[in-house]
Amino acid sequence: MSEFREDPVSGDLVIVALERAKRPIDFFPKRKSRIPTPKSQCLFEDLSESGNWPPLVVQFDKGGRDWRVVVIPNKYPALTHTHDCPRPPIFRRGPYKLSEGIGHHDVLITRSHDKNIAHLTLEDGVCAFEVIQKRYNMLIADKCLVYALTFMNWGENAGASLYHPHFQILSLPIIPPDVRHSLEGSYNYFRKNRRCVHCEMIKYELKSGSRVIFKNKHAVAVAPFVSRKPFEVRIYSREHRSYFEKLPKAELKAVVEILQKTLLKIEKRLNDPDLNFFIHTSPLKRQKNYRHYHWHIEILPKIMPGAGFELGTGVDINVVDPDKVAAMLRNV
Amino acid sequence: MSEFREDPVSGDLVIVALERAKRPIDFFPKRKSRIPTPKSQCLFEDLSESGNWPPLVVQFDKGGRDWRVVVIPNKYPALTHTHDCPRPPIFRRGPYKLSEGIGHHDVLITRSHDKNIAHLTLEDGVCAFEVIQKRYNMLIADKCLVYALTFMNWGENAGASLYHPHFQILSLPIIPPDVRHSLEGSYNYFRKNRRCVHCEMIKYELKSGSRVIFKNKHAVAVAPFVSRKPFEVRIYSREHRSYFEKLPKAELKAVVEILQKTLLKIEKRLNDPDLNFFIHTSPLKRQKNYRHYHWHIEILPKIMPGAGFELGTGVDINVVDPDKVAAMLRNV
Repeated sequence: MSEFREDPVSGDLVIVALERAKRPIDFFPKRKSRIPTPKSQCLFEDLSESGNWPPLVVQFDKGGRDWRVVVIPNKYPALTHTHDCPRPPIFRRGPYKLSEGIGHHDVLITRSHDKNIAHLTLEDGVCAFEVIQKRYNMLIADKCLVYALTFMNWGENAGASLYHPHFQILSLPIIPPDVRHSLEGSYNYFRKNRRCVHCEMIKYELKSGSRVIFKNKHAVAVAPFVSRKPFEVRIYSREHRSYFEKLPKAELKAVVEILQKTLLKIEKRLNDPDLNFFIHTSPLKRQKNYRHYHWHIEILPKIMPGAGFELGTGVDINVVDPDKVAAMLRNV
Repeated sequence: MSEFREDPVSGDLVIVALERAKRPIDFFPKRKSRIPTPKSQCLFEDLSESGNWPPLVVQFDKGGRDWRVVVIPNKYPALTHTHDCPRPPIFRRGPYKLSEGIGHHDVLITRSHDKNIAHLTLEDGVCAFEVIQKRYNMLIADKCLVYALTFMNWGENAGASLYHPHFQILSLPIIPPDVRHSLEGSYNYFRKNRRCVHCEMIKYELKSGSRVIFKNKHAVAVAPFVSRKPFEVRIYSREHRSYFEKLPKAELKAVVEILQKTLLKIEKRLNDPDLNFFIHTSPLKRQKNYRHYHWHIEILPKIMPGAGFELGTGVDINVVDPDKVAAMLRNV
């Protein structure tokens, strides 16, 4: 029989319906190799040529000759920032409420035209994440911005429109609903139990072991018990940390190491699927205390499309057992 | 500049970012024709042969020789119903809460192997919707069930695993979160204004006209001002109706007529995209009064994949102006 599983943080429900899975082989489609854009046509190769210099943030290589990581403004931004504001004004149009699309839409580019974060050296991977931290610390100063989301789209079906690997950082004048639910859920748990709900889960998972994919001194990758999608993975700091951007270098390095290992295993085991991952951390605004929250990364391969049920209910149906996912990825 | 638009019913936010749209031509990919499963291999052709007879509901053709519409249990159900219960019991596993996957997972099949609902005669289309009404009225009697969602997945990328056109009806022991938000939103509006928020929107849209796609005496198709996805369409009863299954035949006929016209236009204008649609109506359970709610159909073509931002925030970015969508579909 299938199960309704409730996410202990957000309260979201997932239907885990293992009987509904087709034979496992169906989840590993033989995909065509990714078709690379030639380097000569890549807008990210020569940033001054493509009008993207100077960047918002830049990290040079050791010799100082070339950049390793840059953050530039997105040329087709979903949000733009034009004025200083404590709070964006709300307009009315008939029965509708709307407000200006205030915010920043950054693109973070790593130097290699072909290698995504999984294939960079650990040092280069850490460098990219340090640049994200740096950008967050710049954004905190802006009174208008409340939340920043960093995400990566890998492959066309995951929404990537450019071949050269890149992250996006969108900063918003609001706390988005999915993050708000998790913040509220972890706050309510903390108030009741004086403990972090994420730490409780991590402790339980490390003890039981069956859903742990990798761990090192400071980080752990888990196939969540309440996985919304097949082959979902979450990566946590093992220490209780509320703010991604405050993470000390040794811990950041441990996280990047686990992220790279996990992404490589997914690539190998699932035939390089399109995927998304993103960082969930506490808001930029510091008026409230978010010490109850525990930052983490969520990885969601695009294995099965969301269908009418998911769209109409907000409840995902997942047909792959997270315990098996963990075993599969551990044993590649 | 882009806009944050707030859905007046659910409170959901959407970023409408028109500057981010590529040239309109990009939304109409030249897709390969759908590859039909040969009739001889279709599990739905001979229902007694495939072990699906007798069905839960059947509507025969006029001569009584063959079926026109049937409802059968899904062979790979996401939910199954094994016992009578006022409320499914909740179990604990470490820090997690879970409950049995109680419910029904029905498949509704229309007779034609090749013609989806858009291509059926109006009479056959109405017959299918009458069967859905009939099934809802059967499900109401089950004390365990609280909500039923009817949806159609059209095409592989929309989650359809079988070629023969079919609907699914999933009945649940809970009100799913997306429906709950809309029920709460419409209740709060009703309590404050003594009016239905959907009726207010419909009135405004019919008056302004720019987002109306089709209308007849009893139904209207609108490109919602707060469209989550490009080319989203909603179809409403023009009269205030809370329960889909109580809709009188003349009104149901008007709805099906508008649905068929809209789907045909989408097929023609967007090159037969994969799509999902579903029915949002009041819960099966009648303990509460849901007269504040207004049933409707939501159509969501699979034009752009959800990316990391949507997955990480619960906020959609839509790059196509609903006003243009309405004009385009009206003028095919």
